[in-house]
Amino acid sequence: MSKKWKVILDCDVGHDDAIALMLGAAHLDIELVGIVAVAGNQVLEKTLKNTLHVVQHLGLDIPVYAGMSCPMVRDQTVAGEIHGESGLDGPVFDELKISAQEEHGVNYIIRTILESKEKITLVPVGPMTDIGMALRMRPEIRENIERIVLMGGAYGLGNYTPAAEFNFLADPEAAHIVFTSGVPVVMMGLDLTNQALADRSIIDRMEGIGNKAGKLFGDMMRFTLESQRLFGLEAGPVHDVTAMAYTVHPDLFEVKPAYVEICLDKGNCYGRSVVDFYGICGKEPNALVGTGLDKGAFWDFLEENLRMLP
Amino acid sequence: MSKKWKVILDCDVGHDDAIALMLGAAHLDIELVGIVAVAGNQVLEKTLKNTLHVVQHLGLDIPVYAGMSCPMVRDQTVAGEIHGESGLDGPVFDELKISAQEEHGVNYIIRTILESKEKITLVPVGPMTDIGMALRMRPEIRENIERIVLMGGAYGLGNYTPAAEFNFLADPEAAHIVFTSGVPVVMMGLDLTNQALADRSIIDRMEGIGNKAGKLFGDMMRFTLESQRLFGLEAGPVHDVTAMAYTVHPDLFEVKPAYVEICLDKGNCYGRSVVDFYGICGKEPNALVGTGLDKGAFWDFLEENLRMLP
Amino acid sequence: MSKKWKVILDCDVGHDDAIALMLGAAHLDIELVGIVAVAGNQVLEKTLKNTLHVVQHLGLDIPVYAGMSCPMVRDQTVAGEIHGESGLDGPVFDELKISAQEEHGVNYIIRTILESKEKITLVPVGPMTDIGMALRMRPEIRENIERIVLMGGAYGLGNYTPAAEFNFLADPEAAHIVFTSGVPVVMMGLDLTNQALADRSIIDRMEGIGNKAGKLFGDMMRFTLESQRLFGLEAGPVHDVTAMAYTVHPDLFEVKPAYVEICLDKGNCYGRSVVDFYGICGKEPNALVGTGLDKGAFWDFLEENLRMLP
Amino acid sequence: MSKKWKVILDCDVGHDDAIALMLGAAHLDIELVGIVAVAGNQVLEKTLKNTLHVVQHLGLDIPVYAGMSCPMVRDQTVAGEIHGESGLDGPVFDELKISAQEEHGVNYIIRTILESKEKITLVPVGPMTDIGMALRMRPEIRENIERIVLMGGAYGLGNYTPAAEFNFLADPEAAHIVFTSGVPVVMMGLDLTNQALADRSIIDRMEGIGNKAGKLFGDMMRFTLESQRLFGLEAGPVHDVTAMAYTVHPDLFEVKPAYVEICLDKGNCYGRSVVDFYGICGKEPNALVGTGLDKGAFWDFLEENLRMLP
Repeated sequence: MSKKWKVILDCDVGHDDAIALMLGAAHLDIELVGIVAVAGNQVLEKTLKNTLHVVQHLGLDIPVYAGMSCPMVRDQTVAGEIHGESGLDGPVFDELKISAQEEHGVNYIIRTILESKEKITLVPVGPMTDIGMALRMRPEIRENIERIVLMGGAYGLGNYTPAAEFNFLADPEAAHIVFTSGVPVVMMGLDLTNQALADRSIIDRMEGIGNKAGKLFGDMMRFTLESQRLFGLEAGPVHDVTAMAYTVHPDLFEVKPAYVEICLDKGNCYGRSVVDFYGICGKEPNALVGTGLDKGAFWDFLEENLRMLP
Repeated sequence: MSKKWKVILDCDVGHDDAIALMLGAAHLDIELVGIVAVAGNQVLEKTLKNTLHVVQHLGLDIPVYAGMSCPMVRDQTVAGEIHGESGLDGPVFDELKISAQEEHGVNYIIRTILESKEKITLVPVGPMTDIGMALRMRPEIRENIERIVLMGGAYGLGNYTPAAEFNFLADPEAAHIVFTSGVPVVMMGLDLTNQALADRSIIDRMEGIGNKAGKLFGDMMRFTLESQRLFGLEAGPVHDVTAMAYTVHPDLFEVKPAYVEICLDKGNCYGRSVVDFYGICGKEPNALVGTGLDKGAFWDFLEENLRMLP
Repeated sequence: MSKKWKVILDCDVGHDDAIALMLGAAHLDIELVGIVAVAGNQVLEKTLKNTLHVVQHLGLDIPVYAGMSCPMVRDQTVAGEIHGESGLDGPVFDELKISAQEEHGVNYIIRTILESKEKITLVPVGPMTDIGMALRMRPEIRENIERIVLMGGAYGLGNYTPAAEFNFLADPEAAHIVFTSGVPVVMMGLDLTNQALADRSIIDRMEGIGNKAGKLFGDMMRFTLESQRLFGLEAGPVHDVTAMAYTVHPDLFEVKPAYVEICLDKGNCYGRSVVDFYGICGKEPNALVGTGLDKGAFWDFLEENLRMLP
Repeated sequence: MSKKWKVILDCDVGHDDAIALMLGAAHLDIELVGIVAVAGNQVLEKTLKNTLHVVQHLGLDIPVYAGMSCPMVRDQTVAGEIHGESGLDGPVFDELKISAQEEHGVNYIIRTILESKEKITLVPVGPMTDIGMALRMRPEIRENIERIVLMGGAYGLGNYTPAAEFNFLADPEAAHIVFTSGVPVVMMGLDLTNQALADRSIIDRMEGIGNKAGKLFGDMMRFTLESQRLFGLEAGPVHDVTAMAYTVHPDLFEVKPAYVEICLDKGNCYGRSVVDFYGICGKEPNALVGTGLDKGAFWDFLEENLRMLP
């Protein structure tokens, strides 16, 4: 029997990205056909290396591609202060023996979607650059995308400016393309992802699984915890995991339909996701926006899946 | 013994404006030295007339001035759908026998502040147009303003666009001038004012006072209730009252310091109040932003004050 | 027989402003009813002082008012490098014995227009701040304004940014109000005013008149000439004079009707005057834009008028 | 002996595009290695077909690629009113027997640049979309681009809005990428290209050559002439030809170094090329901007080259 969802993960690994990757690799109903690394939390060289490390560490047989090394239009910005110098500070990995595929990540996404018999689900959890480029380079891929389940944005406060969340701010034009593409979008923004907080007890529990995956969860999230503690917090959000989880287990989430628009003006709201829950603009909803999380079930679900990995 | 606070109320009456006016007239520690009507919920002709009606109805001896009939820069927008055709649908008033002062509201504000021995508190609960004009026309008035306690903005969702609240959207440039003026600002935005919901029991209670003021509260808020019910709500917020209440009774409120900036880009975030609670921008707070309301105490306080009116 | 044109000059004196003032005072068909000083080339304190100096120096009986000391919305910018530290470097004046009227320049403009039996011509040759404020504070003054003949803007290159001319850049929102007011506008932009170049021969000629006015022209324009020579030019434009000249002698000019719009976006075109000579936007012309100057006749006209002054 | 310049032409054929193509194919010092069609004057389907028609008609052995069918970020706009329904109204072509290469135009540009031993000159004469995409997808191609000689922009009036020229307006973000890429840019804007006017005598002269190329010039430019006559003009500009001509014969042109920036604000200056000839911004020039054309020599040069074609 075939998997239910063919998924391409596009990520800037990144602690929570790595956990989303593990979930995608583990879940029986997800066929993670490829992973594309994109510049985001850190420069592409680093996010690609981090991705390869995680794939090698867990012995996964999933091809990895290098996507965009810079945003579509704006100047590049990285978030070194959150994920550390390497972009994945915390765990220590063996020397890297695998390498990325030659094909450009954007071409890979396009080719895979055009050639696939089943529709492809895109799960971008970094800046939307690769997806934006692919949608513009070959607009016809829209027809064969199941949906785009992304991590990004916020309808409340932003985290990188008071108005904007990092992934959207890092490439607002790409996010704009995603939301205006006509492809069904599920948006897991900060309002939702900040409910997925891994505190010490969660970390202990995942490490308690006793396998490499659980150990990696712990090594990474302890680092995140430390960086959050600088802000007085006792838990670190696993933002990106929520997007991957939604693809197979939407029941864990409360979502609301809304028309979402990205602010492309270069002033103090650049990159903000403007979410119209109440139809003030009179436009049809173009996204489902995550608002609530069944926390207990979410962590159970994650633990159960990490357990299936080496 | 003199009053503690000399206050100018600037309003676009308006249901909740009228209640703010009543509170300002009633409270023993507030000397409501003048009222300026501004275009906002409705055109100036209507907001001025409504203000005069309320003042006459309650027999108040407070001079009323006509302020700005249009925003400082942008095209005018009104909110007829909320406050009705007259801008104060609901109550029925006697024929108007008093009239506004001749002096322009902006000149009145300037003159009063420059001539006053004590500092003046400004309470703008409509668009900030009069205050913005006054601050630019005579910047030196800043020195003699105690603070500006305003109703406007939102750090969550807006009410007139998904990003912006009506008062700020109606004149974003004026709001920008207020927040960059150097005068201490207290911002009662939707996040706070939507906690001040007058449901049927509150309406009954205020009407139960048995005086004109209580009756007026009832006549107005029943209309608001009806218009809110179109949106499925069973209560109407008394937004503007919170600003007047804060001037004398700040303990009713939870406020947080923040750097607040208005979005002046003309796109989908025009007029948004960008609130930086966490100091992401690295700028000193320029406002106290209302976040919480002691509801029980708030309604007690309002009832107690309405009781002091005719 | 009464004068043909009742004119209020609004200026930020300034070398060419002073010459425009002299022309307005001298011409038999102009009744220069008042002069308002505005912040622009220099801060208000200096532009007001300069205006008073010129009026006193020539023994003119024209009231002077202090207008806006800062732009309507944006932060203030001045042009010290063009007009020198004083804003009118060059001539040496006697101690100042006259002073400005008490009334605010904006209120003066409003009152004069509302009270006048004949329509008033406004000649703003600095930032449009006073006019913008007056038009918003009392929109009904539009009915009694003959037209606004202004110096500002450019349809070619700007002078203060590559896109914008100084007067418009210094207060783009005010310029926007002028062009959207419905009042007939004549725009003398850089494309026209840079044709009114006073070289050494022109300076000699005006000084040759032998009166105070000619001497003042010389003292001022020699300074301008020096500052222009830093840019390799051998002549200095008398920008503002063209606006005053147009009010009585439009035949000196070639003008074309166009729809003119100000760029209010805060990026690299902020303050640009977008001039649609060819009707691309499909909007009715709202201005006559100066394109050509009859140079010989212009200087003859100016000399003839300066000759009539003390 | 090898050709001096390896050129990729990127065009949205288009009348003047077709002539630029002929010039590139004819000149002995230009090796026209490939042609990429881009959406612009018309949709990609049409510009591609037109390009193939011209190549087939003249029996050229140059590969043609399909580039971007839509702009990088903004919504698509076409210019049907200038180039007619087909995008190349006027000439009648035989049935099309050749077809485009399979590789995407953007990938072709990237691959060609990366594999070439000599530096590649890019000549984009439509919207800059393909070049912008290539520069972002593989930023390292910058190192092997000789220069980008483009047709687009204006420092005077625009032609598609009062502020912007069509090619830049059709994809401002792509133009922005070109000018900020660090690659040497030569900009042939409207100020220059409107000097290259083909009137009846020029058309007669080119047709007089007596070959297919001359005949095609005539068939196309007579159509352009007609469409220009609607605007009262008696000649049609061959905009795009100037860019191709500059690559081999810069002496025909007067150019000035300048810092050029594209306006990305979405208001009335969107897509404008802000040209800082005088260094007001204090930034190093990033382009040579065409200002003057030696018309006689230009038409001689073009005739001489068209003569070399079939």
